[in-house]
Amino acid sequence: MVTRKEVAELAGVSEATVSRVFNGVGPMKEETKQRVLEAAKTLNYHPNAIAQNFARRRSGNLGVVLPYVPKVHLFSTYFFSEILSGIGAKVKEKGYDLLLLLRSPDEESDYIDMFRSQKVDACIILGATDTPRELEQLKRLEEGGHPFCLVNQHFRGEQFNEVDADHKTGSYIAVRHLLDRGHRRVAFLNGSPQFSSSGDRLEGYRQAMREAGLLPGGMDALSPHLYYEGNYSRTSGYRAAAQIYEHRHEIDAVFAANDRMAIGLMQGLRELGWEAGRDLAVVGYDNSDAARVTDPPLTSVAVPFYEMGSLAAEKLLSRIGGDAASKGTFQVKVDTELVIRQSCGRRS
Amino acid sequence: MVTRKEVAELAGVSEATVSRVFNGVGPMKEETKQRVLEAAKTLNYHPNAIAQNFARRRSGNLGVVLPYVPKVHLFSTYFFSEILSGIGAKVKEKGYDLLLLLRSPDEESDYIDMFRSQKVDACIILGATDTPRELEQLKRLEEGGHPFCLVNQHFRGEQFNEVDADHKTGSYIAVRHLLDRGHRRVAFLNGSPQFSSSGDRLEGYRQAMREAGLLPGGMDALSPHLYYEGNYSRTSGYRAAAQIYEHRHEIDAVFAANDRMAIGLMQGLRELGWEAGRDLAVVGYDNSDAARVTDPPLTSVAVPFYEMGSLAAEKLLSRIGGDAASKGTFQVKVDTELVIRQSCGRRS
Repeated sequence: MVTRKEVAELAGVSEATVSRVFNGVGPMKEETKQRVLEAAKTLNYHPNAIAQNFARRRSGNLGVVLPYVPKVHLFSTYFFSEILSGIGAKVKEKGYDLLLLLRSPDEESDYIDMFRSQKVDACIILGATDTPRELEQLKRLEEGGHPFCLVNQHFRGEQFNEVDADHKTGSYIAVRHLLDRGHRRVAFLNGSPQFSSSGDRLEGYRQAMREAGLLPGGMDALSPHLYYEGNYSRTSGYRAAAQIYEHRHEIDAVFAANDRMAIGLMQGLRELGWEAGRDLAVVGYDNSDAARVTDPPLTSVAVPFYEMGSLAAEKLLSRIGGDAASKGTFQVKVDTELVIRQSCGRRS
Repeated sequence: MVTRKEVAELAGVSEATVSRVFNGVGPMKEETKQRVLEAAKTLNYHPNAIAQNFARRRSGNLGVVLPYVPKVHLFSTYFFSEILSGIGAKVKEKGYDLLLLLRSPDEESDYIDMFRSQKVDACIILGATDTPRELEQLKRLEEGGHPFCLVNQHFRGEQFNEVDADHKTGSYIAVRHLLDRGHRRVAFLNGSPQFSSSGDRLEGYRQAMREAGLLPGGMDALSPHLYYEGNYSRTSGYRAAAQIYEHRHEIDAVFAANDRMAIGLMQGLRELGWEAGRDLAVVGYDNSDAARVTDPPLTSVAVPFYEMGSLAAEKLLSRIGGDAASKGTFQVKVDTELVIRQSCGRRS
């Protein structure tokens, strides 16, 4: 094993100078640096990277926290796979590696541990939920000065770094489109309430219904047969089909909070003899790959998840990279877009 | 900052003993250990994990090498997302984290660097190609004693750890099914030849055709209008549609080497007025989520990618974990299965 001492001797510098070259710290004449690098090359010297990183207090890793549920094929979910692809592209461009931290909902471990153990230099948190425990952990990260960013989740009243999408407007335009086509009794199949995007979607739905005079009693006048709740899984959409079918004489259309639930719903309704695009209109959300290939193809709200992941990684890495132009927290909200296909029916 | 010295004083042991407890090395009385842990807890002492790992020479990370191509949404590919989900579940179970290393095809960096820099304890390589450069790198890993495993790729004549699927039989049963249904002129749309699975599929195809007396001249008698090559992308399947359509009077069925190409092909042929399941039979490969929802639903060969990822991680981690029952290299080949849907036509 070649030592730092041998490199120093060959280059005619002190051992401390060799360290400074490999740790990239302190001022340094270019000529001295080149002499050290050449000596290191000649001797085939590989400074221990962990020791180096220890000295520099950096790992070269961007952490991504993902919620882990046994048996769910996490990376096969359009939402996570697209965001990760966007993060991955940016991380690659910036010369970092990606450390994935799978976290069970009931886990005791703390976000701050990965910073304490210096496994990551910064971290993106996916699937954060609006719970007191989560909020407490995020505040601890903030107080500790550990750089992190949330994607697709907003905490009201907090100033965390976040990249979110405008789900309120996305839902509004989806429901508005159904109303414009002549559907009046539009039901809403929402996802889990602990995500801010579910609340945002409900607001957008309410606004469109209210403007159309279909919520006469105000905010709370939503008829129970127009509101359903799943958990964003295909199965939960399939289960909702039975409930929605019971009220089929009071429902013209269903707006589902994601494509997975919409697809499960269409499958369930079909088994009961009710076809999307013929007997009722269905609109999904996410504009996943599957939306294009369902039968009938699914009208859906496109969310630029890939771009959201890429943006979060870019902004976060430029902050830890010491880019002078990138200071302070950031809160970005990207636009969504309705993609019209055949599932939303032919009425109008 | 609490120091090791303070913990040692409170526990009434030497500093070296504190280190030994936190590094888990050497014999140790349980009572001493508990005393040190309690003192550390009282003082809120967090030993620096990088320093610890440096001492232990382990990172706690399982590396996964993924091929990186700009603009391709890697994690949205069924193949990668399923394998990663399987790896993730096992890594989570075993208490490791997952370090993703995205690698451009033209990159100079060496697999061995991630071991030298102690970023990973072991590594799974996805998307390895059968090229001299790749083989040379893998041999260097092997010679260095660095634990690694290939998934879905085989190097003939080598004894690397690998978890592969029996793609030869998978392809054989797919083509055999088309022949049994009465299709005679079965074309094959293969993927990129640098993957061993492409070669395996070609062998399976040839065997089925030969057994049916449709390759009278032997191995090399494949008519050019029966063989096409894409690169496993949807676009390459779409492009193949035009070529295949030119030979439509000589083709009854197409076996495509993955679902993405099959779906692109069906779309391209439809635009030319030729419908899968009506004008010709199409069979895909992978049995991805998309296969269930295409129109018509796609007959496809199911490969247990999730299980392959899980198996690779389990076997690799048990080897570095020093499990006495897990020694030597492993070469696993899992079974595939034909899933019959409507795209393979009604002939017979």
